[in-house]
Amino acid sequence: MTDQSTNASWGGRFSEPTDAFVARYTASVDFDQRMYRQDIQGSIAHARMLAKVGVLTAQERDDIIRGLEEVRIEIERGEFQWSVALEDVHMNIESALTRKIGITGKKLHTGRSRNDQVATDIRLYLRDECDVIAAELTRLQQGLVELAEKEADTIMPGFTHLQTAQPVTFGHHLLAWNAMLERDYSRLVDCRKRINQLPLGAAALAGTTYPIDRFYTAELLGFDAPTENSLDSVSDRDFAIEFTSVASLIMMHLSRFSEELVLWASAQFRFVDLPDRFCTGSSIMPQKKNPDVPELVRGKTGRVYGHLMALLTLMKSQPLAYNKDNQEDKEPLFDTVDTIRDSLRAFADMVPHLMARKADMREAAKRGFSTATDLADYLVRKGIAFRDAHEIVGKSVAYGVQTSKDLSEMTLAELQQFSDQIENDVFEVLTLEGSVAARNHIGGTAPDQVRAAAGRARAALEARPQ
Amino acid sequence: MTDQSTNASWGGRFSEPTDAFVARYTASVDFDQRMYRQDIQGSIAHARMLAKVGVLTAQERDDIIRGLEEVRIEIERGEFQWSVALEDVHMNIESALTRKIGITGKKLHTGRSRNDQVATDIRLYLRDECDVIAAELTRLQQGLVELAEKEADTIMPGFTHLQTAQPVTFGHHLLAWNAMLERDYSRLVDCRKRINQLPLGAAALAGTTYPIDRFYTAELLGFDAPTENSLDSVSDRDFAIEFTSVASLIMMHLSRFSEELVLWASAQFRFVDLPDRFCTGSSIMPQKKNPDVPELVRGKTGRVYGHLMALLTLMKSQPLAYNKDNQEDKEPLFDTVDTIRDSLRAFADMVPHLMARKADMREAAKRGFSTATDLADYLVRKGIAFRDAHEIVGKSVAYGVQTSKDLSEMTLAELQQFSDQIENDVFEVLTLEGSVAARNHIGGTAPDQVRAAAGRARAALEARPQ
Amino acid sequence: MTDQSTNASWGGRFSEPTDAFVARYTASVDFDQRMYRQDIQGSIAHARMLAKVGVLTAQERDDIIRGLEEVRIEIERGEFQWSVALEDVHMNIESALTRKIGITGKKLHTGRSRNDQVATDIRLYLRDECDVIAAELTRLQQGLVELAEKEADTIMPGFTHLQTAQPVTFGHHLLAWNAMLERDYSRLVDCRKRINQLPLGAAALAGTTYPIDRFYTAELLGFDAPTENSLDSVSDRDFAIEFTSVASLIMMHLSRFSEELVLWASAQFRFVDLPDRFCTGSSIMPQKKNPDVPELVRGKTGRVYGHLMALLTLMKSQPLAYNKDNQEDKEPLFDTVDTIRDSLRAFADMVPHLMARKADMREAAKRGFSTATDLADYLVRKGIAFRDAHEIVGKSVAYGVQTSKDLSEMTLAELQQFSDQIENDVFEVLTLEGSVAARNHIGGTAPDQVRAAAGRARAALEARPQ
Amino acid sequence: MTDQSTNASWGGRFSEPTDAFVARYTASVDFDQRMYRQDIQGSIAHARMLAKVGVLTAQERDDIIRGLEEVRIEIERGEFQWSVALEDVHMNIESALTRKIGITGKKLHTGRSRNDQVATDIRLYLRDECDVIAAELTRLQQGLVELAEKEADTIMPGFTHLQTAQPVTFGHHLLAWNAMLERDYSRLVDCRKRINQLPLGAAALAGTTYPIDRFYTAELLGFDAPTENSLDSVSDRDFAIEFTSVASLIMMHLSRFSEELVLWASAQFRFVDLPDRFCTGSSIMPQKKNPDVPELVRGKTGRVYGHLMALLTLMKSQPLAYNKDNQEDKEPLFDTVDTIRDSLRAFADMVPHLMARKADMREAAKRGFSTATDLADYLVRKGIAFRDAHEIVGKSVAYGVQTSKDLSEMTLAELQQFSDQIENDVFEVLTLEGSVAARNHIGGTAPDQVRAAAGRARAALEARPQ
Repeated sequence: MTDQSTNASWGGRFSEPTDAFVARYTASVDFDQRMYRQDIQGSIAHARMLAKVGVLTAQERDDIIRGLEEVRIEIERGEFQWSVALEDVHMNIESALTRKIGITGKKLHTGRSRNDQVATDIRLYLRDECDVIAAELTRLQQGLVELAEKEADTIMPGFTHLQTAQPVTFGHHLLAWNAMLERDYSRLVDCRKRINQLPLGAAALAGTTYPIDRFYTAELLGFDAPTENSLDSVSDRDFAIEFTSVASLIMMHLSRFSEELVLWASAQFRFVDLPDRFCTGSSIMPQKKNPDVPELVRGKTGRVYGHLMALLTLMKSQPLAYNKDNQEDKEPLFDTVDTIRDSLRAFADMVPHLMARKADMREAAKRGFSTATDLADYLVRKGIAFRDAHEIVGKSVAYGVQTSKDLSEMTLAELQQFSDQIENDVFEVLTLEGSVAARNHIGGTAPDQVRAAAGRARAALEARPQ
Repeated sequence: MTDQSTNASWGGRFSEPTDAFVARYTASVDFDQRMYRQDIQGSIAHARMLAKVGVLTAQERDDIIRGLEEVRIEIERGEFQWSVALEDVHMNIESALTRKIGITGKKLHTGRSRNDQVATDIRLYLRDECDVIAAELTRLQQGLVELAEKEADTIMPGFTHLQTAQPVTFGHHLLAWNAMLERDYSRLVDCRKRINQLPLGAAALAGTTYPIDRFYTAELLGFDAPTENSLDSVSDRDFAIEFTSVASLIMMHLSRFSEELVLWASAQFRFVDLPDRFCTGSSIMPQKKNPDVPELVRGKTGRVYGHLMALLTLMKSQPLAYNKDNQEDKEPLFDTVDTIRDSLRAFADMVPHLMARKADMREAAKRGFSTATDLADYLVRKGIAFRDAHEIVGKSVAYGVQTSKDLSEMTLAELQQFSDQIENDVFEVLTLEGSVAARNHIGGTAPDQVRAAAGRARAALEARPQ
Repeated sequence: MTDQSTNASWGGRFSEPTDAFVARYTASVDFDQRMYRQDIQGSIAHARMLAKVGVLTAQERDDIIRGLEEVRIEIERGEFQWSVALEDVHMNIESALTRKIGITGKKLHTGRSRNDQVATDIRLYLRDECDVIAAELTRLQQGLVELAEKEADTIMPGFTHLQTAQPVTFGHHLLAWNAMLERDYSRLVDCRKRINQLPLGAAALAGTTYPIDRFYTAELLGFDAPTENSLDSVSDRDFAIEFTSVASLIMMHLSRFSEELVLWASAQFRFVDLPDRFCTGSSIMPQKKNPDVPELVRGKTGRVYGHLMALLTLMKSQPLAYNKDNQEDKEPLFDTVDTIRDSLRAFADMVPHLMARKADMREAAKRGFSTATDLADYLVRKGIAFRDAHEIVGKSVAYGVQTSKDLSEMTLAELQQFSDQIENDVFEVLTLEGSVAARNHIGGTAPDQVRAAAGRARAALEARPQ
Repeated sequence: MTDQSTNASWGGRFSEPTDAFVARYTASVDFDQRMYRQDIQGSIAHARMLAKVGVLTAQERDDIIRGLEEVRIEIERGEFQWSVALEDVHMNIESALTRKIGITGKKLHTGRSRNDQVATDIRLYLRDECDVIAAELTRLQQGLVELAEKEADTIMPGFTHLQTAQPVTFGHHLLAWNAMLERDYSRLVDCRKRINQLPLGAAALAGTTYPIDRFYTAELLGFDAPTENSLDSVSDRDFAIEFTSVASLIMMHLSRFSEELVLWASAQFRFVDLPDRFCTGSSIMPQKKNPDVPELVRGKTGRVYGHLMALLTLMKSQPLAYNKDNQEDKEPLFDTVDTIRDSLRAFADMVPHLMARKADMREAAKRGFSTATDLADYLVRKGIAFRDAHEIVGKSVAYGVQTSKDLSEMTLAELQQFSDQIENDVFEVLTLEGSVAARNHIGGTAPDQVRAAAGRARAALEARPQ
């Protein structure tokens, strides 16, 4: 391959070859070769459509398909020579095709442009990856739901402001994470339907003069429909932005999940043990067992947020239709795909092996006056207005802080200092079990509710397309 | 109202009053009072539900409802005294209620917490605003579609890389913008369904010990269902992030739209005139007529992107459940709502009055070898492979650049220098009308296709809920 | 004031008044009135300069100055009527001036434009705020350094990966925060020097035909120099972006500081007590004492990051010179200023009152094999290569985990299982005091180093301009 | 190398090997190997220091240095086998060293940790890159200043709001770009001084028990000083964020520059020609010559903004000291370095070859009433207040719009309709040359001022360290 070939596809009106540094700076083949499979898949469908409408003969179509299949095999065997001089995945593959099958290869590009070709490739690519990611999401959720059922009765402190608030069950907490991921899945499904539209046929920007059949191509490629407007089709990158914003929410959720795992694995909390194989050590401190996986996932959150910002900035104020700027859509998108797929995988692998340290959880739940709200509710049931009950309990707590006694450790007499409505039955509501069992409505932390919620969650997972 | 009242709702266990600066720094009433209507609406539904399950008497319920209605009227008349000492909209309203109806007012907070109350208010608020924004989107789209129908035959240059590419119709270009907004609408609808879930009943974080009926409250407030997990419900701000990402895409689209209007209004393009009432002048240059509205919309894009980043950062790594950080969700969200509602309104007002300068558009379309692709396609129809045809036309263009002649201005002899396949019928394909009419498939720029697309777009708009 | 006055400053070439909604949408007076003081200060300097070069008479200059002073007093007394119809702070003030002093008021705008006027105002404003912020930074640092000296010997666990790593002193930890803020101060100083340049004289974009003396105006306003290029001067918003990026780093540091305070105030850590007056309670859980100030500061981090992104997006791809987009620079900048000033103030108020729970800190430092590195270093001193020593200690720790014994709790015999190089003197290096004292070099945690570092930090603070 | 070696550096306390996927997910060697040169440079300085203070013998030091040099050569020859099992660049190099020189290799890590080692490597790396980037900035500025001198008299329209505002010179416009880059250089210098601090010696987080001499190491590596606090040193990533924010401003400036080049290369503007070698063509439209380099630079802006957001998010709320999250600092930083270095290079190569189309520029400047302000200033010199003069000219322009005449094309009688103060000398101020020459003060567009400004700019460039 010679330098001549650099701009074989567009060099006619140019008086000098591209500057060598510029050629490298503007080439995309280093990263867009990742879409070779989709590029070939799209080209085959395009060739079939061209033959159907009579632009190619059956023989030409078959030669093209055979040639493209050979190229694909070459690539997959690692024998393909990618050339920066040929700029991108499209020209590399087309050029190889023409070397293989001769002049017929040059006919493949009839009625399309790289503008609609790349838009098609990237949508095919992203649709495939959505399905992989959905599967990892589902696997992670399955792990959570299963663990939640097992831990439906395990009591731990619930926090607000990282202060002990009320006792909850570990199963309930696990289902909170699942609720986040359920929304993520729902967003991914919505996003996929907007991805799954065929831009091919928009050609450079205005459509083409060949008698193409875009519905047929859409059908061959599994797209729901052809897109409605050619100018929009070649310049639209909404799907990449929407996907990256869905991904940002996924990473945000995993970062919260991670934050809690890191806290819980600390010597101060000791709520969970992570298996050694998900941790690493220190090159200097021999005692360390670091929760690397959640830390790294937490760290990778910024990466995906950054890609979202990159893509939004990229598209800001771009006039129609295609501009070279758009080439910059791929790297952020590819890295977003890799990051969420791998991060979900790491969590899906790890979650089923989280080991709850139940005794430590329970011990922590007993501290911090976690049943103070239960005492207030008890007083309300005795006829005191909630705001007044709150005040009474507030004073009991202040007394408890001073005397280092939890509410359940006070005598009846001590409690009655603050309200004569308090009677012996109060100690029942001050137990951890009594507290969680009492929150017995949909969404509440009562073990029965947790089991019911896990059942519904499991059913939703099972109803997903496999 | 005295300082004592500062922490009336939680002061029992505290030994000193809040620092005055801290009180101001942590208060939210300055901005969350915007949700007073939803706060009252939610409280009324909560009171009805509490009465239904027997926690309140019918009399108490009615007193509360009457009191809240009075508060609402006071606020709407501008007679309400908001107090920073009472922290937020919730405590301000509850405190006013109690002043009005006495101790019964203190019972309203039974079985809920400010954590689930604010989550409910904000979802109600955002759902209402989604509907307002959807209506502005629809109005803007109606203007675009109507104008597109009118301009279905108006020829202008289509650009890629801001270089003249191929002739298109102005109607086709307008429908490209509509296609973007159509996706925005679809995303808004998907987002709204995830907003429309009732968190009330999650209480502080774990649910409540009162026998609440969350399905009934959901029904009263028009929510699709109660949320599934109390810990998640009080800490979830996905809806705000998803809404802001939908809004970011809307602003991105408006920024592209704006960029083109600014270009087109320049002395260099002269494609459109904007009505004077959407422009402003200069305090120093008497001749200026500046396209302020599109410029400002373009500038406001950053604002919404920034809010998206603010919200994503806010939620990153927050442990469950509610943390004070979450108070920071409101200002970015409110400003996002205002910005997109007003920007859409400005565009919806302006678009029907865009005046196309058809002669200038046409003149520009004739320059820049815009029908070069048509010549290549012509050669392909004569049996030349596309890539070779491209090379032939490239050379014709190079000749045209040198001799300052467009393709349609060359003689047959001149054209035949580059290929003897060129015959007299070539001049037909080199006209602007011939060029656009030939792109006659779904998504293409042919006037008939534009009219058909506008028809489909109009039908879609009419099918929306009013 | 009538609608007519809307575009008094530029209406000559317009055929219809501005649309009422557009007038509101494009007006900036609601937020830019904040710069009234700087606007008047700049106008007075401009008038003095115009008089010096003979464009105004001494009488005109004095009338203008007197009139502007009256306007300022009116504004400060709250008696000024701001008008949206007059668009911005500049036209509001100039119009009031003209009402006061007649036609001479109209001469003030000679040789300038709102483009360079607003650029001057905002730089004056930001320079003033930099000084206020620098003072709050200094006050916060003083509090940290003082506390660090007091806590130079207080031992706490140092963490990496939130796992106990090695003992450090609390004073050392406080100085880590100070080191971050020291860099922030240094960045603020660098930023201020780039703010402190005079754009006035750039006029609309090209300079002015009047014989202005920009060096004189710069001197009057305390600017280091006039800017070098008029096109750049009216379109440059670097100073706002650079300031916001300095602010983002400040907030990032405060967010880390906050995260640790929230952790340390939890029942699990119990390392510090925050005074009640910096905390708030819960409306439902009577026992809660929430670390609201650090949580809110942490939450506000996103807000400033968002403003940075807003400003970067705003300026992306703007052609020269001034565009209306630039009006969008102010709100993010103002809110950034308010947020960091108030957040620094809240911390500067709070830090001197942090109460270390020394016993809990010490107890925690003893757990987690925090002196394992000291044992490895001990072995190295006995001639074992570091990597091998690390392996030996790793095995001792594994034994300790199994037997629930810290290293210092093992007998000599137990320790010698892992290396016969261990002798009786090992127990010295396994104490907390021995461990921290041994890290005795610049930057190390040894109490003597902490005191020396605090001394240097104090000297640096004292050397700052007051 | 076997799997055993995976966690050779920290495996002592672990009971199972790292999960294979986790090993890959958490490894950094794929990207941090880029710092091999700095890693070796830092290790050599560390070894020299250890020998100086007696921790290593002279022989050991020399063996280590020799071994490291061999490793470096191996890497540079492409013969080095990087192992994911060894996690990162540090362990890969140390392990190779130990294979080469035996047990002495294991002594190199004495008194340091990977935490301070990586912080040192990255600062060395970034300092080096700052110098490369500064050189490219300087080269680009030299090109701009040279071209500005050549084009000091070339008249073009100056725009505000993309509407013709006043005539300026092309040289003046070029110097506006230079003014932006001058600030960028100044920020880069300020940033570099905060990078150039030595963290080595902070060890894992608390310093080390060895008698290290950090001043000596700092001197060997050319750092200004050792850092002040060990906890801060291993967790600080300010330098990466500050650098990326400096880079974001550079990209923002290049994006504005690019936007104008793209506009100017359009058929509508035709202000400049870009050399063919900086452009590419279209695979479908044979006539296209696309300004790919500026478009791509504009597109890459988002990438750097995104990295800034990634890094800010990364560091938000991280507790001290080192966390695994921090590993995520490298990829955004490396890509930022590559992006701005290459983008500056592309511009530095291209700018000297920009060809101004002077006739088109001049023709455009004559349109759009660009001397309207000059007429207003003329009237002011005749004694009319500026605001009134503005009104008079506004009306003349309205008349000109109606009659399609520029101001300079009206007769004296026509002009006098609007003010009887207009006399025959008015036509002088209405010429383009008269207009630009009159803006004759520092920062103004007068050719003499442009030449003077270019002279000052050139002097500043020459004064930079080479």
